[in-house]
Amino acid sequence: MNEIEKSKEEIAIAIRAYNQKGWSPATSTNYSFRTIMDNETIYVSRSGVDKSLFSAKDFITVNRIGNPIGKDVQTVPSAETLIHCILYDLFPETGVILHSHSVYPVLISQKFEKHIDFEGYEIQKGFSGQTTHDAKISIPIFDNTQDMDEFSTVLIENKNRIVNHSFIMRNHGTYAWGKTLFEAKRHLETLEYLCQCEWMIRND
Amino acid sequence: MNEIEKSKEEIAIAIRAYNQKGWSPATSTNYSFRTIMDNETIYVSRSGVDKSLFSAKDFITVNRIGNPIGKDVQTVPSAETLIHCILYDLFPETGVILHSHSVYPVLISQKFEKHIDFEGYEIQKGFSGQTTHDAKISIPIFDNTQDMDEFSTVLIENKNRIVNHSFIMRNHGTYAWGKTLFEAKRHLETLEYLCQCEWMIRND
Amino acid sequence: MNEIEKSKEEIAIAIRAYNQKGWSPATSTNYSFRTIMDNETIYVSRSGVDKSLFSAKDFITVNRIGNPIGKDVQTVPSAETLIHCILYDLFPETGVILHSHSVYPVLISQKFEKHIDFEGYEIQKGFSGQTTHDAKISIPIFDNTQDMDEFSTVLIENKNRIVNHSFIMRNHGTYAWGKTLFEAKRHLETLEYLCQCEWMIRND
Amino acid sequence: MNEIEKSKEEIAIAIRAYNQKGWSPATSTNYSFRTIMDNETIYVSRSGVDKSLFSAKDFITVNRIGNPIGKDVQTVPSAETLIHCILYDLFPETGVILHSHSVYPVLISQKFEKHIDFEGYEIQKGFSGQTTHDAKISIPIFDNTQDMDEFSTVLIENKNRIVNHSFIMRNHGTYAWGKTLFEAKRHLETLEYLCQCEWMIRND
Repeated sequence: MNEIEKSKEEIAIAIRAYNQKGWSPATSTNYSFRTIMDNETIYVSRSGVDKSLFSAKDFITVNRIGNPIGKDVQTVPSAETLIHCILYDLFPETGVILHSHSVYPVLISQKFEKHIDFEGYEIQKGFSGQTTHDAKISIPIFDNTQDMDEFSTVLIENKNRIVNHSFIMRNHGTYAWGKTLFEAKRHLETLEYLCQCEWMIRND
Repeated sequence: MNEIEKSKEEIAIAIRAYNQKGWSPATSTNYSFRTIMDNETIYVSRSGVDKSLFSAKDFITVNRIGNPIGKDVQTVPSAETLIHCILYDLFPETGVILHSHSVYPVLISQKFEKHIDFEGYEIQKGFSGQTTHDAKISIPIFDNTQDMDEFSTVLIENKNRIVNHSFIMRNHGTYAWGKTLFEAKRHLETLEYLCQCEWMIRND
Repeated sequence: MNEIEKSKEEIAIAIRAYNQKGWSPATSTNYSFRTIMDNETIYVSRSGVDKSLFSAKDFITVNRIGNPIGKDVQTVPSAETLIHCILYDLFPETGVILHSHSVYPVLISQKFEKHIDFEGYEIQKGFSGQTTHDAKISIPIFDNTQDMDEFSTVLIENKNRIVNHSFIMRNHGTYAWGKTLFEAKRHLETLEYLCQCEWMIRND
Repeated sequence: MNEIEKSKEEIAIAIRAYNQKGWSPATSTNYSFRTIMDNETIYVSRSGVDKSLFSAKDFITVNRIGNPIGKDVQTVPSAETLIHCILYDLFPETGVILHSHSVYPVLISQKFEKHIDFEGYEIQKGFSGQTTHDAKISIPIFDNTQDMDEFSTVLIENKNRIVNHSFIMRNHGTYAWGKTLFEAKRHLETLEYLCQCEWMIRND
């Protein structure tokens, strides 16, 4: 199995595991990766797949502007593929992008306007670049939209606020990414955990 | 394996997965499907099966008015089989009907009278016909009853309010359906997720 | 495999599944069964087994007063074995007894004194003898004790209040039973679900 | 398979199971064991492993002061390895140490200052030495720090308060240990369950 097939298998395992946690109900969410060797080619999850059944075969191949290429040229990718493309452009070290529709970030996004800040949690060290719990970190929250060009502009304009490899889309979910699947998972799980803690503390 | 056996296997997988989520405690819930080729024949889950152990063998065959046919003619189907029959009649494109006893819709049904409305959630697009989060959608809530003839009348009279392929039965659960298992699952999971979000937001 | 070995295997599957739900943390809970052919012999789970690893081999054999017999004569059964014995005596049709330490009944037992009542839930029909949601049912709550003789007396004195095949022990958990594993599971899951709903509604 | 390899396999199973419960998000938590025959050698989980994928191969070998030895001499262990070392010194009967980042103890630690007390729960008997629910027990809460020497001093100074084989680190998680994996699991699960109950009761 070559490196690309291995990545597909490994990400498919993560996708099914996150589905079991309830992070991708109703065929929601998209996932992608690319290799260091060829950063022009992006492998992205097909639109409208039941994530409980997602397999390595369910990735399609697109170019850097999200157009299907090769054997997938006839496929219509998810509109959100453009979010993946713009993230790879803005953060060039990115190798894997994960997305979640889990409940806690959605709830948080109804109560916080522009960002949510976390302070004092050991798990904050899950974000690359954070070395202590004794810091205040901020995750931007952006309004949801069906207009992906508009959203790309929002991401470009807010690039400097996106320092923890993730953001929240209001009433939609989270995006998190990293150099590898390992790092992207760590970022996603860190954000999800922090959102859960903050939500539950609010309700004390 | 023919198409019917394949459908039985696939729906049985979904039934066991939903049981693990806690959506069918205590042998509750019923599931059914029919094929495009023969919409007179309905395959419905046997009454009183532990859904953690449900298998393809646990479907019985009934006709459009819910009477067992063929080798199952001696079987007594669940009283709720009639709800399935009336849904196939009212919404003729339906191929699969799912039912859930999960907690959140039950809680919601104690706090809302005739319907619950959702607005602004990306996941609303999980309902066929919804293309944006920027809309208000409504799911009807009906009173529970043991009288299936009475409930059939309620469904017929309220057909025009059932526009998102699902409804809630008070203190009972949800029904959701679609052309295929894929679509029915998407509708059910969308409704369950929305009920969970709205319940949790209420408690903020 | 004879009937007894088959029962051990089937109950072990249920025990491991309930452990995954969090109903038997920290080696807690006990389970037992007996056959119609020989209601003098009770097969009860060994004391102090990690329920995530419970297997058919982890049953020991005791007589009707809870003394180990046969090859298990040297074993010291759990003190709570006596609760199982007294339940078999009080409710002679019982074939399987399940126990749970799940969180919701424990929480409920801190807020209700002698009993908790449920009304209007479809799932109430999960209790044998209940045929409609349109009824009020009552589950007794008893104080926890380490004195099993004392607790046996409590059960005997309150027999008439135990009409739904289950009870709650304060800050301890639930017991539920039935003629078969199928029925005992239905009773346990019904009670757990109702306790969860009532707890969550309280917190609205 | 020798005893050490068997222990690695058994603890790896527990690690993956706890990950599924959400107790080790984002590569967090560490685990260790040692044998009665050689209490100078400690087997500790490698730093930065995705716990959903943890296997027996992911243990490294360190000496009593946390320095890697043998084939692992070039490895950099997790900084928290020192917590494991000091616990083995303070509580010499310890054979297995477990760690958790689960949500409830973290929430509890934001609301309680020096300790949390539990009273009246049957599950308290999960802590070795506790024989009745009818007692008040106390679990110390310590401030989180990145300075492991400082934290070792805190543990040494508070040894007498650590009587239930576990403690909570504020906004970080729990540590629990025992003579065997069986006992360590029982202690960890007991603490996690009690924290969940107390949190949920607070929110009634």
